[in-house]
Amino acid sequence: MTSSRPFNFSAGPAVLPEPVLRQVAAEMLDWHGSGMSVMEMSHRGKEFGSILATAESDLRELLAVPANFRILFMQGGGLGENAIVPLNLSRGGKVDVVVTGSWSRKSAAEARRYADVQIAAEGSGREIPRGWRLRDDAAYVHVCTNETIDGVEFHDLPHVDNEVPLVIDCSSHLLSRPIDWRRVGLAFGGAQKNVGPAGLTLVFVREDLLGRAMDICPTAFNYETVANNQSMYNTPPTFAIYVAGLVFQWLKGFDYAGKRGLAAIEQRNIDKAALLYGALDGSGFYENRVDANCRSRMNVPFFLTDETLNDAFLAEAKAAGLLQLKGHKSVGGMRASLYNAMSLEGVQALVSFLKDFEVRRG
Amino acid sequence: MTSSRPFNFSAGPAVLPEPVLRQVAAEMLDWHGSGMSVMEMSHRGKEFGSILATAESDLRELLAVPANFRILFMQGGGLGENAIVPLNLSRGGKVDVVVTGSWSRKSAAEARRYADVQIAAEGSGREIPRGWRLRDDAAYVHVCTNETIDGVEFHDLPHVDNEVPLVIDCSSHLLSRPIDWRRVGLAFGGAQKNVGPAGLTLVFVREDLLGRAMDICPTAFNYETVANNQSMYNTPPTFAIYVAGLVFQWLKGFDYAGKRGLAAIEQRNIDKAALLYGALDGSGFYENRVDANCRSRMNVPFFLTDETLNDAFLAEAKAAGLLQLKGHKSVGGMRASLYNAMSLEGVQALVSFLKDFEVRRG
Repeated sequence: MTSSRPFNFSAGPAVLPEPVLRQVAAEMLDWHGSGMSVMEMSHRGKEFGSILATAESDLRELLAVPANFRILFMQGGGLGENAIVPLNLSRGGKVDVVVTGSWSRKSAAEARRYADVQIAAEGSGREIPRGWRLRDDAAYVHVCTNETIDGVEFHDLPHVDNEVPLVIDCSSHLLSRPIDWRRVGLAFGGAQKNVGPAGLTLVFVREDLLGRAMDICPTAFNYETVANNQSMYNTPPTFAIYVAGLVFQWLKGFDYAGKRGLAAIEQRNIDKAALLYGALDGSGFYENRVDANCRSRMNVPFFLTDETLNDAFLAEAKAAGLLQLKGHKSVGGMRASLYNAMSLEGVQALVSFLKDFEVRRG
Repeated sequence: MTSSRPFNFSAGPAVLPEPVLRQVAAEMLDWHGSGMSVMEMSHRGKEFGSILATAESDLRELLAVPANFRILFMQGGGLGENAIVPLNLSRGGKVDVVVTGSWSRKSAAEARRYADVQIAAEGSGREIPRGWRLRDDAAYVHVCTNETIDGVEFHDLPHVDNEVPLVIDCSSHLLSRPIDWRRVGLAFGGAQKNVGPAGLTLVFVREDLLGRAMDICPTAFNYETVANNQSMYNTPPTFAIYVAGLVFQWLKGFDYAGKRGLAAIEQRNIDKAALLYGALDGSGFYENRVDANCRSRMNVPFFLTDETLNDAFLAEAKAAGLLQLKGHKSVGGMRASLYNAMSLEGVQALVSFLKDFEVRRG
């Protein structure tokens, strides 16, 4: 299907697959002959029950989530999880955090409300720091595996001691690539990057980590309670789960370069990132400052060497159908987010624009 | 506009106005020429900024919310607020709760994690209890002004001592009638009744109650933080806010019985409830057990005197296009929820069915 829609590089909420949006629109007044919009269904009814069950099963299949992990559909986003994780796992004890950018720094600050937090290593926002000081008696180690603002990504999950669970905030690479569950105790991510609408948070938790919540943990955010109630202790964000479920089905059927499903989307993500980083590196006019071994495939911050051209760049990009390229206010410059639903054509259009703008203004 | 859709009596998530659903479908791929679905917009961009600002302003106008109240768009639902309210307002001190049914009982239990909770009075789920034992030094008094499960509603807000703020959980009557803000310190409600999709929680908080949060309150749920960041400390449930905003516009333009807006919807709600309670009371075959002075306009639980007919009743109702009439499992029987988007025709159809079923099976 050819679309006339512009290319949307928002860091999140972000572009969604057009076929998903079309299906959502088509089913808005009557989901599968039920006579109801998904927004209007009781979460306890069989219709929504089937939507939730299919979404969970498709997600488990896509990410090869092992049977000893529970998948929770929650609310509160990544910033909510920054409190909810220590409330559930820290037992008020020790938490080690590796700081690689803005998000992990925020996670460390929030966890201090509940736990004895140590910064195990701290990077500048352009690299993954070495020499982690990990405590053997920590309740968990927290890592943000893709820093949305800084554009730093762990391409391989770190291997920490088996006795200390690794918690990964994978909001902005979730479903863009496989996850090595052998290295993970808990993974969480807001939906509004690769999954669906904002307001849905996915949590994958190893079963042995359930039942550790502090007494002060709100019941609605207690992982064990949520797990025991199949994500329906409180009314879940039903419509967002439905849209996410359609995204999962789109991903399962995704074809690219002779691959299918998650392998196909990962390959396209690799190709998209290579195309954009190649263009940036091949120019003296633009610059990405992240170490080559940990550049994010999802979020590509870059700078014009002449920053007085920033406003012209953004205005001309928008006129060319390239939206939401402004960098995060804490970093400045530009940022192109290349989530799953961003096509190769979108990145090609961006690269063409980069070259054209450089020719005209460089 | 005439619809062929069935009538949906779900207690929530619940029926939404059909014109709203049609507009959501029409704007799904391109909101107002932006080239984006609302789901795909950065919450920091001007497009979503205008959606949020209009929604808040329309909501403030509809409910005549005074200038010294902040309106917060949050996540976590009513069960989340059961913890978030005491975390923000109790200071670990005393909280008085009036129990009128299932929801206020849950609120009391959750608040005990954070505060010295006293049940100020307790009803059976069929009446508003008298003789409240209120403590002058309580941090607040909590009341559920409409018990969704039991069908008990405060038609007038209680008057408690000015020095002790009244907190009302108004999830299931929010926007069905005016609120007397002079009697309220804080009001909260999940959206999935009269407002929009599940996953959005509205909080109205008097400004002098901000800044009282306990240290253990998660930052994402700290009212002062949320207020200071215009509900954008974390990514808000943007799409749900957009749908809610369309519902607010629908309400502002609603005409009925020579009235307009909230007054018109309230009058229709009064008429719908009178029609259904009249039919139930006029029959020996059906029964509502709530005291006449506190029967809910929104949620009408009722019982067949011969409960062996329950399954037949539900099956035949569904065949007649009357959906989701099964009562809550804790109460049994039936429940018809008559939220704003339920038409008078829908209640007339239900009443006709009640009479017809009684004639055939009575």
